[in-house]
Amino acid sequence: MTRDEAARLDAEDTLAHKRAEFSIPDDIIYLDGNSLGALPTRVMERLDRVVTEEWGTDLIRSWNTAGWVNLPTAVGAKIGRLIGAEPGTVVAGDSTSVNLYKVVSAAAALRPDRPCIVTDTGNFPTDIYVMRGIAAARGLELRIVDPDQVGSAIGGDTAVLALTQVDYRTGRRHDMAALTEHAHRAGAIAVWDLAHTAGAIAVDLAGCEVDFAVGCGYKYLNGGPGAPAFQYVAPRHQAWFRNPITGWFGHIRPFDFDLDFIPAEGIERAAVGTPHVLSMSALDEALSVFDGIDLSEVEAKAASLTRMFIDLADRRLAEHDFVVATPRDAPMRGSHVSLRHSNAYPIVQALIAAGVVGDFRQPDVARFGFAPLYLRHVDVWDAVDRLVEVMESGAWRDPARAVRNAVT
Amino acid sequence: MTRDEAARLDAEDTLAHKRAEFSIPDDIIYLDGNSLGALPTRVMERLDRVVTEEWGTDLIRSWNTAGWVNLPTAVGAKIGRLIGAEPGTVVAGDSTSVNLYKVVSAAAALRPDRPCIVTDTGNFPTDIYVMRGIAAARGLELRIVDPDQVGSAIGGDTAVLALTQVDYRTGRRHDMAALTEHAHRAGAIAVWDLAHTAGAIAVDLAGCEVDFAVGCGYKYLNGGPGAPAFQYVAPRHQAWFRNPITGWFGHIRPFDFDLDFIPAEGIERAAVGTPHVLSMSALDEALSVFDGIDLSEVEAKAASLTRMFIDLADRRLAEHDFVVATPRDAPMRGSHVSLRHSNAYPIVQALIAAGVVGDFRQPDVARFGFAPLYLRHVDVWDAVDRLVEVMESGAWRDPARAVRNAVT
Repeated sequence: MTRDEAARLDAEDTLAHKRAEFSIPDDIIYLDGNSLGALPTRVMERLDRVVTEEWGTDLIRSWNTAGWVNLPTAVGAKIGRLIGAEPGTVVAGDSTSVNLYKVVSAAAALRPDRPCIVTDTGNFPTDIYVMRGIAAARGLELRIVDPDQVGSAIGGDTAVLALTQVDYRTGRRHDMAALTEHAHRAGAIAVWDLAHTAGAIAVDLAGCEVDFAVGCGYKYLNGGPGAPAFQYVAPRHQAWFRNPITGWFGHIRPFDFDLDFIPAEGIERAAVGTPHVLSMSALDEALSVFDGIDLSEVEAKAASLTRMFIDLADRRLAEHDFVVATPRDAPMRGSHVSLRHSNAYPIVQALIAAGVVGDFRQPDVARFGFAPLYLRHVDVWDAVDRLVEVMESGAWRDPARAVRNAVT
Repeated sequence: MTRDEAARLDAEDTLAHKRAEFSIPDDIIYLDGNSLGALPTRVMERLDRVVTEEWGTDLIRSWNTAGWVNLPTAVGAKIGRLIGAEPGTVVAGDSTSVNLYKVVSAAAALRPDRPCIVTDTGNFPTDIYVMRGIAAARGLELRIVDPDQVGSAIGGDTAVLALTQVDYRTGRRHDMAALTEHAHRAGAIAVWDLAHTAGAIAVDLAGCEVDFAVGCGYKYLNGGPGAPAFQYVAPRHQAWFRNPITGWFGHIRPFDFDLDFIPAEGIERAAVGTPHVLSMSALDEALSVFDGIDLSEVEAKAASLTRMFIDLADRRLAEHDFVVATPRDAPMRGSHVSLRHSNAYPIVQALIAAGVVGDFRQPDVARFGFAPLYLRHVDVWDAVDRLVEVMESGAWRDPARAVRNAVT
């Protein structure tokens, strides 16, 4: 493979035009869209309108006239299309952690006779933390097993299986269909966190018969730093699942100001407080970038970018002691690739200084995200090129020199 | 009193210069700042920088370089000064409802042997809803009494007293010092919701020895629609209170990605997920309007504006069957005044059409908020004048005509 071949893949890329919808700095190759998605250019104009007109001029009336009150379900519906959700099953708002608290609590309550929640060590720490809290409060066991032991850890005692689909460190992707079916056969409820998949991979919640899901708005959905998260509740659970945090936006008629709590009949009951309109509007606008896009196309490009990075890592980085930690079989991974290296931390710092932004994850992982909507194959090529330079020049041993390189 | 006398009060107002820091439409008198605060002009510039530079250009690095990671405590510190909180006791984030869930759950856990939470019918419905959920989950009684019965409802069975300081409908203010002391003498924990007081009244959480508090960022703090809320935890509780939602931003070292949850030592343990940076930045900037302002000055102006409205209501509106529902003694009320009227709903609609924005609350309340930082005494005068016009002209019986009046 040559850089020209990478450029040829870009020329054939049916998503190539999407890059122009993002504001991407000229001087860096941004391989951290799995941590914070790049800025869709239309967001600033939307926020200007929301702040100046909707808030500044129309003020309180905008709750109705600008549709602020509908943002949680409107944004939820846009996300729902990207994750294979049925209509009326997704609501946006709160953080992923708060949403996971809600859905795992609700899921556990559906299996009150079962004492165990199953998860794995590849789950994101905040998910584990939230579930430790739930388990302690309810007197349940939180069973944390290796990712490849999940299937055998599920049994007749399992109330809930809760996993993140793609491992934030290794990029390994769980088989959502198979594990959900396995959980259901054992009588357990299946909860999935789509943080590293929504917007990058063609998730099929309905097809997999997932019970509950949550996910993140600021990674591949490009909703901005700390963007509101989302929750999915399968249609069959909506009439009777119980949100443990019973706030007014989950009430059937919030503006009646009644003192009795009657939950909304649909997905609204998963909401809690007043939505964060500024952050929510940014996410809403960012999601418009996905209009008309088929997620299978996005997933195919994710596979192509990550495949190329893995191939180049094998050819050019193995000799510098990098080990590919991400599955080589595309359906087994997400849209980021991790390399293990004993000096991963200073290497990532030197690489950032050289203009390639990836990130370091404990203990020895250099992680590179390939957001399919705005990354090119030539970016992959150039990133590997610069990483080879950082290694050959020894720049990673000398951060000051690495910074000088970046300037020139 | 004449309009000239109102203008004279404005000329003497030491806070008068603050109005210029807000973007207020010329064609309305905005008396709903207790529901959604007006736009501080500096917010748009800040959001432009946050979106274009911090997100768009610096991307993931801004978590450190732009201090995003510190926003919850930095914004919390700014709010803390306005509510008489000790340093390091306030964190911003989440919604008021989610925060109330956290602090009431934590408070109840501090009195595990007591079966009752006490609140009143003047509390905001979402507070009641959240506590109904907590009570049901923990097998507690939620005792909801009339506001003037709160003292006698607290007893040896009371785990938590949870009240909103100022009633969203009537404007009645509870005596925070006396009720907190009363709760403590009974061995209960005192939780206060400052939604209708923070930024309008000189709250003294430390002086009142309040245990926990929550409040709202989008009313008198002017943080924008659905702005992040805040939580207060008294220093004596920080080492051992338990946040039921144990997310990574409440971890002692969130970026170690350890699988064990060790709560942060200070107020950070009250945080949960990734902060909503856009909404949080707007709130942060909005709070700068309070720089150098003494809240006792703000409270004095609130008392002056509301006193004038009540006086004018007595003189000019009583004959149109309006009844002042708000206490006439200034320390007994907040910064809004409510009038009861059997036709309150169409009257409020006609008044809005005539350019005076207040709001209606079930069943018969016309509510008018007087945000001390940007409202003038002449606004109070003019608002009453227009309300008299709406009544005398019969415009409230004919919304279409009222709209035409507003245009001319």
